[in-house]
Amino acid sequence: MNQYIAPIRDMQFVMQELAGLDQVLALPGYEEADRDLVDAILEEAGKFAGEVLAPLNRVGDTEGCRWEAGQVTTAPGFKEAYRQFVESGWNGVACEPEFGGQGLPRLLSSAVREMWKASNMAFSLCPMLTQGAIEALALNGSSELKARFLEKMVSGEWTGTMNLTEPNAGSDLAAVRTRAEPQVDGSYRIFGQKIFITYGEHDMTDNIVHLVLARLPDAPAGVKGISLFVVPKLLVNADGSLGERNDAWCASIEHKMGIHGSPTAVMIFGENGGATGYLVGEANRGLEYMFVMMNEARFGVGLEGLAIGERAYQQALAYARERVQGKDMTSRSPESVAIIRHPDVRRMLMLMKAKIEAMRALAYVVASSLDHAHQASATDERNKHQAFADLLIPVVKGWLTETANELASIGVQVHGGMGFIEETGASQHFRDARIINIYEGTTGIQALDLIGRKTARDGGAAAKALVAEMLALDGQLAEQADADFTVIRQALVEGAAEMDDCVDYIVENFSANAAEVAAGSVPYLMLVGIVAGGWQMARAALAARRRLDEGSGDASFYRAKIATARFYAEHVMTQVAGLSRTVREGGKSVLMLDDEQF
Amino acid sequence: MNQYIAPIRDMQFVMQELAGLDQVLALPGYEEADRDLVDAILEEAGKFAGEVLAPLNRVGDTEGCRWEAGQVTTAPGFKEAYRQFVESGWNGVACEPEFGGQGLPRLLSSAVREMWKASNMAFSLCPMLTQGAIEALALNGSSELKARFLEKMVSGEWTGTMNLTEPNAGSDLAAVRTRAEPQVDGSYRIFGQKIFITYGEHDMTDNIVHLVLARLPDAPAGVKGISLFVVPKLLVNADGSLGERNDAWCASIEHKMGIHGSPTAVMIFGENGGATGYLVGEANRGLEYMFVMMNEARFGVGLEGLAIGERAYQQALAYARERVQGKDMTSRSPESVAIIRHPDVRRMLMLMKAKIEAMRALAYVVASSLDHAHQASATDERNKHQAFADLLIPVVKGWLTETANELASIGVQVHGGMGFIEETGASQHFRDARIINIYEGTTGIQALDLIGRKTARDGGAAAKALVAEMLALDGQLAEQADADFTVIRQALVEGAAEMDDCVDYIVENFSANAAEVAAGSVPYLMLVGIVAGGWQMARAALAARRRLDEGSGDASFYRAKIATARFYAEHVMTQVAGLSRTVREGGKSVLMLDDEQF
Repeated sequence: MNQYIAPIRDMQFVMQELAGLDQVLALPGYEEADRDLVDAILEEAGKFAGEVLAPLNRVGDTEGCRWEAGQVTTAPGFKEAYRQFVESGWNGVACEPEFGGQGLPRLLSSAVREMWKASNMAFSLCPMLTQGAIEALALNGSSELKARFLEKMVSGEWTGTMNLTEPNAGSDLAAVRTRAEPQVDGSYRIFGQKIFITYGEHDMTDNIVHLVLARLPDAPAGVKGISLFVVPKLLVNADGSLGERNDAWCASIEHKMGIHGSPTAVMIFGENGGATGYLVGEANRGLEYMFVMMNEARFGVGLEGLAIGERAYQQALAYARERVQGKDMTSRSPESVAIIRHPDVRRMLMLMKAKIEAMRALAYVVASSLDHAHQASATDERNKHQAFADLLIPVVKGWLTETANELASIGVQVHGGMGFIEETGASQHFRDARIINIYEGTTGIQALDLIGRKTARDGGAAAKALVAEMLALDGQLAEQADADFTVIRQALVEGAAEMDDCVDYIVENFSANAAEVAAGSVPYLMLVGIVAGGWQMARAALAARRRLDEGSGDASFYRAKIATARFYAEHVMTQVAGLSRTVREGGKSVLMLDDEQF
Repeated sequence: MNQYIAPIRDMQFVMQELAGLDQVLALPGYEEADRDLVDAILEEAGKFAGEVLAPLNRVGDTEGCRWEAGQVTTAPGFKEAYRQFVESGWNGVACEPEFGGQGLPRLLSSAVREMWKASNMAFSLCPMLTQGAIEALALNGSSELKARFLEKMVSGEWTGTMNLTEPNAGSDLAAVRTRAEPQVDGSYRIFGQKIFITYGEHDMTDNIVHLVLARLPDAPAGVKGISLFVVPKLLVNADGSLGERNDAWCASIEHKMGIHGSPTAVMIFGENGGATGYLVGEANRGLEYMFVMMNEARFGVGLEGLAIGERAYQQALAYARERVQGKDMTSRSPESVAIIRHPDVRRMLMLMKAKIEAMRALAYVVASSLDHAHQASATDERNKHQAFADLLIPVVKGWLTETANELASIGVQVHGGMGFIEETGASQHFRDARIINIYEGTTGIQALDLIGRKTARDGGAAAKALVAEMLALDGQLAEQADADFTVIRQALVEGAAEMDDCVDYIVENFSANAAEVAAGSVPYLMLVGIVAGGWQMARAALAARRRLDEGSGDASFYRAKIATARFYAEHVMTQVAGLSRTVREGGKSVLMLDDEQF
């Protein structure tokens, strides 16, 4: 019941038909990869996820992590699974070859990461945070720092963390108070407290490399006075061997609603004289360095939404096929049937399936754009793709994680009363999902980024380009005259028009009336997610139609694609017009009450 | 932070201005109650809820219940709180005076029950289930059974349970297998297993009176062969004293995602020779008796939705006023502000506030109708109100409980990362809420009832009467020419028209194509909930306008009512058109795939 089978068939369809796998593989730097390699990696990763990680998911939930005297013990099996993960070379899949990474395209590594996240989200956070730390160091660290730390982080011998949040500095990093005092040897002493540090302490590796935001003594106030430091748990000698224990300690771990397998640490730096740290890049540019990474980190959390949705769907589907209850409405048979036969259960499963497919397509298309943005030879190609990805990353983060919460809840609902019983396992996905639309920037923060930096700042150019790209599909859709495509086409055209209206509204009103526009920012983010998802569903339906017309491949799979795209149009795209009205008309009423009137 | 203050001001507004308190108090049977008594009861109940029950809510969550050798120990403080609850006479508030109840109007008892549920949902389930058992016995039991059990159940000296579900008989009670063997003394021996029995075993009272569905040896198959039995934990002697331990045992309690304070028992009847049971009413009519009660039980669970929403709102609001983070978008001040100043946080709080007010108004209006349906002198008055309540009870159950899940999730979101930390308390409401749209009939079951028995069966008469009643408000709304009322009016008129279209679609298609119509049943239920809620918000705005025009009362409160109604129109009613399309056009695509294509 609580198995995970990597959805390789759908991943391949999306990569090949929607995300331009062949074009990605033709990019400079990816010459060594081909379709066979891609398929082999998906196969192997799927095995590892299904056989090694998935069985530990519930163990992580029930056993959690234990803190004792500053040490954290992870759940039984996690340490051994991590060892296998590293030995199999999975840690460096997306990293640069320079430090031992495999430098595979993001399109492929996204599919692989989806598998880690779906099979065992709590486990997957460890390599995810390590990868973030690797990127920050690789982009901005001195060659000495890189030489000392990167290779072992890429291999996974050491893990990495990101220390941003403090008790009074969550979404607002301007309030960071941790301080760094320069030493004569060029290093720094770090003093302060950080909270919500994922895998801030654990027993899976000898060393942990903390990246820490802190202020220098003479730093300006606010976000322009924050610097980034490397603070290893154990100091590293010049020869690369491990040295003294640094003054960086895990004071406790949090008691959370979900992701129990992932330790969330309170870190204390410098309680015994100061933690030794090394400045990354230039002083006072820490937040800027973080922001460069943040795009990819946010994209990664978006993938968690897709992954949890997929896992919840697999579990609900297995239960719906197995659980016998009630009669079939469409027959007169007195026999009880599996609940998958009941129309409302089918509606719930279709909603899960359709949204998962839309999420996967949108996420992989953005991953593909990130590959082009990084690797394409032509500057204007790179810029075009970067603008597309920049626009859609807050949507991938916000819409996918919000949707995952909805789907995990539907997964519980399909189980009926059993869904509320912990042993069933459906509730774990529901509880685990509840953090992903909060961390790495809440949905509200993503939505502010979307309306401000991503929509208003360029006068709506990137958003309008997306609308135009959606509408460019109209001709192909119009060539298909059947009922399914008529519905799909109408929904896309209407949806794109509504998005266009919203973009106009935002561009026209943001500078004069930012608060009113911001009051509609989350509905706008949800609208863009739904419409962009619908665009991908329409593309998927067209691709499936082409394969059916050619008579190639699995006809049943392609017919399901078309039916699912139609379902999405009728059950998801129908929300767009209402969201659009809320965005354009609903700002004023959000702000009408005084604080005391609540 | 984790306090509960009963929202008496809003309760009074709804009771007086929307639910016709004065007319209810004028009904035969309620002569002894007046507005002063109502206010005094609300005041006292609010105190009890806030001072006694609310502080135990988190204790129940963290300590849960312990099972040992068939005995269940409730969380520290629950037993004493129950003793106080009973001693203060709260258990019999809504029960008939014949057996010691206070026989207060449902309108009032609903407000009181909202307080129990909001302050401590896990605790409140015990008196709720007892009340269900009381009603089943009072309606159908012999005078001997009533004499033996009812008085002590009404006082709360004994509690009651409902034993319906079995491992293979959840939503489908036709599959009940528990059997009853007639004995020569007129009693029965009961054999079988029941699951999900709320407060099936506990330490708060000496005796527990189980009502159990079981089959007689010669019973017809299916739902027409189920009878209802009283099976006390301890047998009761003729003089009312407690006798032998009955053969009804709690085999275990469930490990649940939420409502940890409420023991959910697996009950085994007859493992040692048979549990003694007494037939309630006639043989084979058990399900029919259950259905009579079920309306009020479902209404009661709907109130849980309102209550959890209110509690989550109070907690989120307190946090949003207190948590300082980020700058005010509308000023240039460098000072950080409380997050309630941020537009998206305000939007979330408004969404909670608006939906809670709509839910409360709808629930209390239905409670008032139940009072009229039971107590009005004129038959046609009773029938009219019964039809109205019958139509709306699946909506109160389904829409309020689904909405509560949304609001509890928003409550977590307002807390940001702290919402995911168990100590904060926001997550408890989120976890507790996840059962209420499942038990007492899932939302899918409510929606089937709504489209079938409540909409299609009478050719849409009751639903159309509701639409007409909504549209009858149009004249009054049109008299108010300002922007707020223009928005409110348009949303209501459009919403009622969409509901009307859906009713036509259901009536026209249900008999020929039940599965397709059923595929849109949950969207229809949500649509009716939203529109009926919007109707109440419009009524509230008109009532507030009247008071403002009179210059009476708290102007700030009334102005907030109008602003909140406008917000509801712009942020909630905007979903109606999309839901309507899904209902009317989306049935086919739900059913397009073969089982293997999922």
